[in-house]
Amino acid sequence: MTPNDRFLKACRHEPVDATPVWLMRQAGRYMSEYRRLREKHSILECIKTPELAAEITFQPLKAFDLDAAIIFADILTLPEAMGLQLEFIGGEGPVFHNPIRHTDDIDRLHDIDPAEALGFTIDAIKLVTRELNGRLPLIGFSGAPFTLACYAIEGSGSRHFALAKSFMYQQPDAWHRLLDRLATTIGHYLAAQTAAGAVALQLFDSWVGILSPQDYAEYVLPHTQKALALATAKHKVPCIHFGTETATLLPAIATSGANVIGVDWRILLQEAWSLIGPDKAIQGNLDPTVLFAPPEHIRQAAREILDAVKGQTGHIFNLGHGVLPRTPTEHVAVLIDEVHRHTATAPSP
Amino acid sequence: MTPNDRFLKACRHEPVDATPVWLMRQAGRYMSEYRRLREKHSILECIKTPELAAEITFQPLKAFDLDAAIIFADILTLPEAMGLQLEFIGGEGPVFHNPIRHTDDIDRLHDIDPAEALGFTIDAIKLVTRELNGRLPLIGFSGAPFTLACYAIEGSGSRHFALAKSFMYQQPDAWHRLLDRLATTIGHYLAAQTAAGAVALQLFDSWVGILSPQDYAEYVLPHTQKALALATAKHKVPCIHFGTETATLLPAIATSGANVIGVDWRILLQEAWSLIGPDKAIQGNLDPTVLFAPPEHIRQAAREILDAVKGQTGHIFNLGHGVLPRTPTEHVAVLIDEVHRHTATAPSP
Repeated sequence: MTPNDRFLKACRHEPVDATPVWLMRQAGRYMSEYRRLREKHSILECIKTPELAAEITFQPLKAFDLDAAIIFADILTLPEAMGLQLEFIGGEGPVFHNPIRHTDDIDRLHDIDPAEALGFTIDAIKLVTRELNGRLPLIGFSGAPFTLACYAIEGSGSRHFALAKSFMYQQPDAWHRLLDRLATTIGHYLAAQTAAGAVALQLFDSWVGILSPQDYAEYVLPHTQKALALATAKHKVPCIHFGTETATLLPAIATSGANVIGVDWRILLQEAWSLIGPDKAIQGNLDPTVLFAPPEHIRQAAREILDAVKGQTGHIFNLGHGVLPRTPTEHVAVLIDEVHRHTATAPSP
Repeated sequence: MTPNDRFLKACRHEPVDATPVWLMRQAGRYMSEYRRLREKHSILECIKTPELAAEITFQPLKAFDLDAAIIFADILTLPEAMGLQLEFIGGEGPVFHNPIRHTDDIDRLHDIDPAEALGFTIDAIKLVTRELNGRLPLIGFSGAPFTLACYAIEGSGSRHFALAKSFMYQQPDAWHRLLDRLATTIGHYLAAQTAAGAVALQLFDSWVGILSPQDYAEYVLPHTQKALALATAKHKVPCIHFGTETATLLPAIATSGANVIGVDWRILLQEAWSLIGPDKAIQGNLDPTVLFAPPEHIRQAAREILDAVKGQTGHIFNLGHGVLPRTPTEHVAVLIDEVHRHTATAPSP
């Protein structure tokens, strides 16, 4: 079987036989296989047991015609390894029991070697890489310095991020110290993932869209640049930057060092592309709730995105955010089929 | 005492002696006067007792040098009057116990005369208008069809609005019927507020930024246009359209019929203005979390916004969203002082 290299080609702006597609959270609660596994194992058990993480990574690959795998892991294990006590509370989501609230709390964070402290994910990547055997590319990932700092300070998700932003405005020196430590650890973590077999990386700055363009440039961008520079210092793999609500941040994000910029559905894909520049590849951007629509609506919405960037190299189809729980699996199959069918350069069989 | 007409002049693009400023949620939990009143009265009691609503409306006017009053009310009393059972649950926010989930639920909604069914807010507007006696303009408001439909369908706030969007995609005819009924009721409600004394109106489409530009144009804009047309059919008062995360929706929102477009901090004010066109006035757009920063930072951030649109008529200073709980009141005073001081055309006393 020929290796599927559409995804990597698109990352490098090379022509492809059909637009590659993968989905954020392509493994997860919407799949019955995943829910069955989760009846026996907690989410942290799944993440920290390489065999389970590998099994979950493969679940969507067996079910759908996807063009990339992404390792099953969580962005919060990194701050956990640095000393924050993590718990996933049913229904409420993840919580840190000892959030960072004072300058001293930053000094309490451990200096870690992520290849060791997060060895469970590194080992899962090795297992998946071996089993994939070059058939599909495997994406490694990490949370970005800003999004991880928000979690570390808020202690959980938040609507207004008042604690995180207050920390940023009130103690800018401590803020930059925290983000610098996170950036270093993230950079080394991502580099370890490529050493273990990941052939592309995605940096999740999911919450960065809560910032004004001025604040992004001042408080975040230099740390994102550092993390990505460290990540690719040795292995020059393609890096994807992902965030939501980033329409006004895109020109700055384009300077982060990422080769591919992921955008959500709030911006027209062609408009986003003009903001990041033609030298960058682009990933996105269907609203994940469209997967609740009837199949013909899904196909139509996918075609609108594909037609808007028709003839351009460097588009990776994805949702604008992760697959939502309760998404019908047959609708996921419909979407992937439409992306391939509509963009196939060779005649359909 | 000369009436303060800066706000209305700015709405009409006329020159002003200093940039007008008011704040969304300028009455609320961050003020000790409000919290004291709330120890004795529930939030719905405060809204539905005209004397209490009037008293709360005046609390920030007594504390700060604001250029407009806004009636104390809530956007959810309108769907409540149409038959949805509303409860404010401590810590969790508002909940409808019988949300709209099926087409039949729309037919169950009552046809109301908002001047009567929401007479408590109309009476509060009359009380405040009498007491203001023309010294300050009073703003009336309503939720927009989309944001109210989201609440009505979800039954509460939501992160992904999967239920509301699924309804929209799966049953577009029922969706349009629901929004049309809401638009009509909202239009009449706003018209009744101007008849009672409100001299400007704000339509809150707080959640509209969760939509793609395509979906906004198809599923929302016509209903917003209808609501605003009905609102101003008799009294041609200035209308403000407010939403968050609207950067990519602004060209469409500019056609809603509003005279003033409110924007959040995610977009540079001058960039937003170029998207809505110079004939519209603009309102915004300081990140409310900046009010947790030290005073000098607040003044600096305010000046950056003011300087970006310096010399242009038609700017109303506001936050990009409501004042957050625990905001220091002295910081609110600092902000208002800086807006006036920095833009005063006459020499300071």
